[in-house]
Amino acid sequence: MHPYTETRLRVRYAETDQMGVVYYANHYIWMEVARVNLCKARGFNYRDMEREDGVFMAVAESACRYRAPAHFDDEIVIKAWIAEANPRMVTIEYEMRLADGDRLLATGHTRHVFVNREMHKARLPEKYFAMFAIAPPRHDGTEHPGSHVAES
Amino acid sequence: MHPYTETRLRVRYAETDQMGVVYYANHYIWMEVARVNLCKARGFNYRDMEREDGVFMAVAESACRYRAPAHFDDEIVIKAWIAEANPRMVTIEYEMRLADGDRLLATGHTRHVFVNREMHKARLPEKYFAMFAIAPPRHDGTEHPGSHVAES
Amino acid sequence: MHPYTETRLRVRYAETDQMGVVYYANHYIWMEVARVNLCKARGFNYRDMEREDGVFMAVAESACRYRAPAHFDDEIVIKAWIAEANPRMVTIEYEMRLADGDRLLATGHTRHVFVNREMHKARLPEKYFAMFAIAPPRHDGTEHPGSHVAES
Amino acid sequence: MHPYTETRLRVRYAETDQMGVVYYANHYIWMEVARVNLCKARGFNYRDMEREDGVFMAVAESACRYRAPAHFDDEIVIKAWIAEANPRMVTIEYEMRLADGDRLLATGHTRHVFVNREMHKARLPEKYFAMFAIAPPRHDGTEHPGSHVAES
Repeated sequence: MHPYTETRLRVRYAETDQMGVVYYANHYIWMEVARVNLCKARGFNYRDMEREDGVFMAVAESACRYRAPAHFDDEIVIKAWIAEANPRMVTIEYEMRLADGDRLLATGHTRHVFVNREMHKARLPEKYFAMFAIAPPRHDGTEHPGSHVAES
Repeated sequence: MHPYTETRLRVRYAETDQMGVVYYANHYIWMEVARVNLCKARGFNYRDMEREDGVFMAVAESACRYRAPAHFDDEIVIKAWIAEANPRMVTIEYEMRLADGDRLLATGHTRHVFVNREMHKARLPEKYFAMFAIAPPRHDGTEHPGSHVAES
Repeated sequence: MHPYTETRLRVRYAETDQMGVVYYANHYIWMEVARVNLCKARGFNYRDMEREDGVFMAVAESACRYRAPAHFDDEIVIKAWIAEANPRMVTIEYEMRLADGDRLLATGHTRHVFVNREMHKARLPEKYFAMFAIAPPRHDGTEHPGSHVAES
Repeated sequence: MHPYTETRLRVRYAETDQMGVVYYANHYIWMEVARVNLCKARGFNYRDMEREDGVFMAVAESACRYRAPAHFDDEIVIKAWIAEANPRMVTIEYEMRLADGDRLLATGHTRHVFVNREMHKARLPEKYFAMFAIAPPRHDGTEHPGSHVAES
């Protein structure tokens, strides 16, 4: 397994629906919270990357499998890790568990392409390579295949 | 009563909470939907005002009184009208009812200040005055007190 | 392609984020709106199914691929159709396009298991079979394989 | 000032809008988070009150004044306190500040009526009186006027 970052949050009343459990779209918001923390843990601030470098991570794909429902006031632990990255895109995987008892609630992933302010595809600046575990470019101008870690 | 605009929407499952009714913050989103329609009905598009004139309506105040709960799949009718406006701010009032039977669900208001892209206070461009029912500026340079309609 | 239902909605300001486009979790809320309409078009009301029969559609899986960003005030057309159904689960697929110009914005699917009020797996009551295009049970007690439509 | 409870949270990307600041309805969700913590600090769990006693706090009124915008990744400190309470309703007030520098972002209040599962008005069970700082009932059967603290 890849090195992961853990994020803890508590289920808000606003996140429940009339079925008495967390509404399914909110897991994606939790993934975002975990993703932002993953960035921080790896040494950069997503806010600064947007502001200072004009690099944004546009979501190209998202998916979630729900194993057990989450309830109001539950404490949730989200593991997030980089499953694959290259200078044009990154895939992050997530695992959400109940803090109390470690029950698996959901797994998911998001795939992001780097874009500029105009939402056009961009190449990640080299200074961020190490943070995404992307190998530095070779001297002969060719690229590494990136960190082609098999997706778990 | 002021001339109003009517907006209809249907309660989304996502908008309910575990009490089985619409979560109280969502009424403010409905007000926004009604507000955007009110702008259109008065002859301008809020999106264009932001894009082309760099004028934004920052919310300075919001309030809502909840009279009866709204439920999933209910059709809601929202009346919205300008209660007060001058070149620096505008107050909009709202009334939310069940489409089926006309039951009053909630009333509320939002107060907005005009700001520029940097979120600094701005003066509404004159071309929008009529749309907000603001009297045109006098020739002697002084201002009308605006449309100081007593709030209902 | 399967018979589909079309749903139209307009992007709310609340649904945008600071990238200036619709936040990626909101597409799942749109899928829900389309899903509820799909149920109505097929002859039943999801609200009544919950209330009267105690049958809920718990989300087991969701996924979305984002092809182009959606913006505030865009009108969106969502096609939704049943891709696969049997008495224990149903898979619905979605296609989201800009109403103006038909540009493809996103595709996705949700997979649901039927559960009772206690969130335990349940079997869909037979009276709903036709609405989900599930073949009626055979007299010999065995089941049809369901509407094993290949997923598109 | 009344004894208050402090809650800290970090602004989510999902909470921003295309103006680049937190969308105005989200402050009400933050109030809810602070309210739940206020309950815990005062010795009871809102979740348990709902589950075990069937007592719910339906929102009757909410209001917010926005002094300065909040931005993505800002840490927010929310003070919440009981401004007024009696066996039928409670008013809670809130103050939201930037953790970094203490800048005032918003103030607000919510007023709640106690209701049962059927959303009918109910009387708060006596065991919760102390937690809401409500005086115990007198022996002669009349009620105290409640904790008629002047609203700040």
